[in-house]
Amino acid sequence: MKKYDNLVTNAAGRVVPTFFNGKEHTPFMGVGKYKPTGRKYAPPIATCADYPDDGDKRVSSIKEALIKAGIKDGMTISSHHHFRNGDLIAVQVFDAAHELGIKNLVWYPSASFPCQEGIIKYLEDGTINRIEGSMNGPLGKFTSEGNMSGMSVLRSHGGRYQAVQDGDVHIDIAVIAAPTADAFGNATGDRGPAACGLLGFALADSQYADKVIVVTDNIVPFPCIPWQIHGNNVDFVIEVDKVGIPERIVSGTTQITKSPDRLLIAEITAQFCDEVGIVKDGFSYQAGAGGTSLSIGMYFEEMMRERNIKARFIRAGSNKYPVKMLEDGLVDYILDGQTFDLEGVRSMRENPGHVNTSPFTSYNYHGKGNFASLVDVVVLGATEVDVNFNANVVTHSDGYLLHGIGGWQNCLFSKCTILPIPLFRDRMPVVVDEVTTLCGPGELIDVIVTERGIAINPLRQDLIEKMKGSALPVKTIQELKDEAEKICGKPTKPQLSDEFVSVIKWVDGTVIDAVRKVGS
Amino acid sequence: MKKYDNLVTNAAGRVVPTFFNGKEHTPFMGVGKYKPTGRKYAPPIATCADYPDDGDKRVSSIKEALIKAGIKDGMTISSHHHFRNGDLIAVQVFDAAHELGIKNLVWYPSASFPCQEGIIKYLEDGTINRIEGSMNGPLGKFTSEGNMSGMSVLRSHGGRYQAVQDGDVHIDIAVIAAPTADAFGNATGDRGPAACGLLGFALADSQYADKVIVVTDNIVPFPCIPWQIHGNNVDFVIEVDKVGIPERIVSGTTQITKSPDRLLIAEITAQFCDEVGIVKDGFSYQAGAGGTSLSIGMYFEEMMRERNIKARFIRAGSNKYPVKMLEDGLVDYILDGQTFDLEGVRSMRENPGHVNTSPFTSYNYHGKGNFASLVDVVVLGATEVDVNFNANVVTHSDGYLLHGIGGWQNCLFSKCTILPIPLFRDRMPVVVDEVTTLCGPGELIDVIVTERGIAINPLRQDLIEKMKGSALPVKTIQELKDEAEKICGKPTKPQLSDEFVSVIKWVDGTVIDAVRKVGS
Repeated sequence: MKKYDNLVTNAAGRVVPTFFNGKEHTPFMGVGKYKPTGRKYAPPIATCADYPDDGDKRVSSIKEALIKAGIKDGMTISSHHHFRNGDLIAVQVFDAAHELGIKNLVWYPSASFPCQEGIIKYLEDGTINRIEGSMNGPLGKFTSEGNMSGMSVLRSHGGRYQAVQDGDVHIDIAVIAAPTADAFGNATGDRGPAACGLLGFALADSQYADKVIVVTDNIVPFPCIPWQIHGNNVDFVIEVDKVGIPERIVSGTTQITKSPDRLLIAEITAQFCDEVGIVKDGFSYQAGAGGTSLSIGMYFEEMMRERNIKARFIRAGSNKYPVKMLEDGLVDYILDGQTFDLEGVRSMRENPGHVNTSPFTSYNYHGKGNFASLVDVVVLGATEVDVNFNANVVTHSDGYLLHGIGGWQNCLFSKCTILPIPLFRDRMPVVVDEVTTLCGPGELIDVIVTERGIAINPLRQDLIEKMKGSALPVKTIQELKDEAEKICGKPTKPQLSDEFVSVIKWVDGTVIDAVRKVGS
Repeated sequence: MKKYDNLVTNAAGRVVPTFFNGKEHTPFMGVGKYKPTGRKYAPPIATCADYPDDGDKRVSSIKEALIKAGIKDGMTISSHHHFRNGDLIAVQVFDAAHELGIKNLVWYPSASFPCQEGIIKYLEDGTINRIEGSMNGPLGKFTSEGNMSGMSVLRSHGGRYQAVQDGDVHIDIAVIAAPTADAFGNATGDRGPAACGLLGFALADSQYADKVIVVTDNIVPFPCIPWQIHGNNVDFVIEVDKVGIPERIVSGTTQITKSPDRLLIAEITAQFCDEVGIVKDGFSYQAGAGGTSLSIGMYFEEMMRERNIKARFIRAGSNKYPVKMLEDGLVDYILDGQTFDLEGVRSMRENPGHVNTSPFTSYNYHGKGNFASLVDVVVLGATEVDVNFNANVVTHSDGYLLHGIGGWQNCLFSKCTILPIPLFRDRMPVVVDEVTTLCGPGELIDVIVTERGIAINPLRQDLIEKMKGSALPVKTIQELKDEAEKICGKPTKPQLSDEFVSVIKWVDGTVIDAVRKVGS
């Protein structure tokens, strides 16, 4: 069987394979154009008669649990990334599978981290066929150089939920590492020696996988409250010595930027939001963990304190900054998808207004709405933006896979999506003629803010109108590109092969782009 | 089409129809014997593209929402009973359906109350074909006298979740009355003018119904937190003037009993629990809202205070008594299925240890376990118990349907199930040769406590052993029955027709018994 086949040009004008990993896939048809007609995935019906009356589902080891879960060749095994670079379990799962001689597994993580470099040997020896999830660092290099047997597939956090819910991806065995759990399988992320805040990325896995394994280093008597993961969906519980390395769970930049360029970008962004009327009582915004993003949050905070107004909610990745705002009464709610520091974890444990969310509530495009579209303004990063506002977040200008999509695609549906980005990085322009990889269609990206000017998407005449007469440097995106090229020269295209190594899904499960092998 | 057909004698020896309401059903096969082989019900996949970007799903009236939801003849419409006798919405839904000329609807409430007597006219005029849910008061009389067109079906709270999850009952339109909601459809029961505590009985409806309508009299800006019901499952939101009558939401007896007989029963029950070793640090119990049950809780509380021990959790229907224990630190958690007074509502809003639960976590037999079997001791009522410990909770000795099953069948799976009951009521013995209607198989009922003695199920030799030498009046159940008959005389059997009017489902969806028409 070919690794992929059936190349078509999709509605975004990108050539993509529509057959890969043994199945047909739908090409991207345009934002909101693909209408699903099927039904959600229907897991097998369980019965209490098959589970212990006393609720004690503990087994002795990961290997035993995998055997009891019926592991066999070709299965899909999932994991979540709430432990970030402190995860200790994912590689152990494949160690056990390898010991059992299992082949051709699919790893379906919600994201991967450098600590999971140990996966590479299993990709090489055939234990794992492919990763469907983010590939960055060593895994990104491995994939980009064409070394993965199967076709890797990148999905947004919402797209991952959608794929599981819709049965596009069938998880055979979900392994949910949990900072605290009871023997019944109820689990939480907000307490325990390896507390990571929440477990929302594992929600779909717990709801739809055939077999669900909870791994913890902190067993409490029933009930483990909050039960972020319901034991009623769990088959086996394993106690280990250490489920995660706490000091590595905390990551992302949690310092306000000190770079003068970035501070300028943050200031312009905040001022833009103010001038177009976004910053007002009851508004909402998404604040990421990067330095620029944090700085924008600080400017918002200043404005709110000055004007004695408050935000209704902050969509987070939380850390100490939004937590302080919550505790100071500057915002009613933090709707949190993943905590980025221990203050975030503490706050989620202590503050009823600090709400753990999942990709189901925040991002699933195949729900009856999701709350991404209710956020007044989001600021996101990008590796490249083209003159039609299309953006790339997964490959660098050299063609290497370097980032996962995360919630990036999902956030584009906010009422105002701003990309505050430097005009160039390492003398490579960020605004380009055509992005290497298309992750987000330009029609959803409203504003580009650089240290040398703001470009507003012509589709947003309302914003252009509001900025008339502003002292801020509003330019066209073409002007920004020209300026970048004047400084850096015309960028050279990366040398890429004709071979595809990875596929990028849109939030509705269609194929928006594919990533080519680096080199020839 | 016949109303019912295919009579068989099931594993409990009861003659039941296995064809009714147009479908085949499985007869009861014994506790834990029926093993489902199918898959859960798979709702249609929705897409955000079909829902408003701004998240505002409000429509102007119940009638408009029903039209938009595509109401037509023969559909199943569900409602929940958290407003208890203060519900204002269910009848209005059928008023609207009637105005639209819709016929043959199925009403699928989680329980019905006298305030819904207005449903009878729609059962009479063909707007509603049948009720699948509890029928008590006027609805019980109406049904028992053979006036319902379709076959009514009684399920436990867990059985209701199971039926929806498994697709045995397909809800076309769920109407969820909510004390507080946002325009996106997120909803909570713990606040607002008609606060009722929680909305757990509507969880299955929100997850599996084709169309979901939230009705509220208290709209808050997004996000409505806690989101006991997720707006991501909701199609339409309606604002009304008044969603429930607060003073009628509170119900159940919330006073400690003053009857000397009941107090004696409570005291014996508590003492029994103590003597067999149930009352110890970290134990758990279920406390209902009846006077006897409350009194047993008081005895437990006394023991705990005296011994300086605490319970791990109380399974409730909560009211001021368990709330005080929680706030005094005598118990870690209240796992609450429905609040019975305003103290319960307040506590759920304020105490993280007062947890709202749903029939999914507590009772669904077709899950990977549920927590009913983890409760150390439950005390339940019964209208009749027979000499094999089989019990009835839905019909009185005159044959009339008087109660729903509630969580009764589900609670039988606790580690020790006790029925503290009077030996006779109105000179009718409660312990009988054969129950009028079988709701709970005797093998799950461990102990009967009456004012004249305790009978322990011979299957529980461990308990019999522990009670040797006790000062409590341990007797055989035959002795209790003889004593009752000595006082009241042999009870006369109610006059019942051969015709069936109602079917009783077991927790696994099989038919455990059927109820006959009263009279000839």
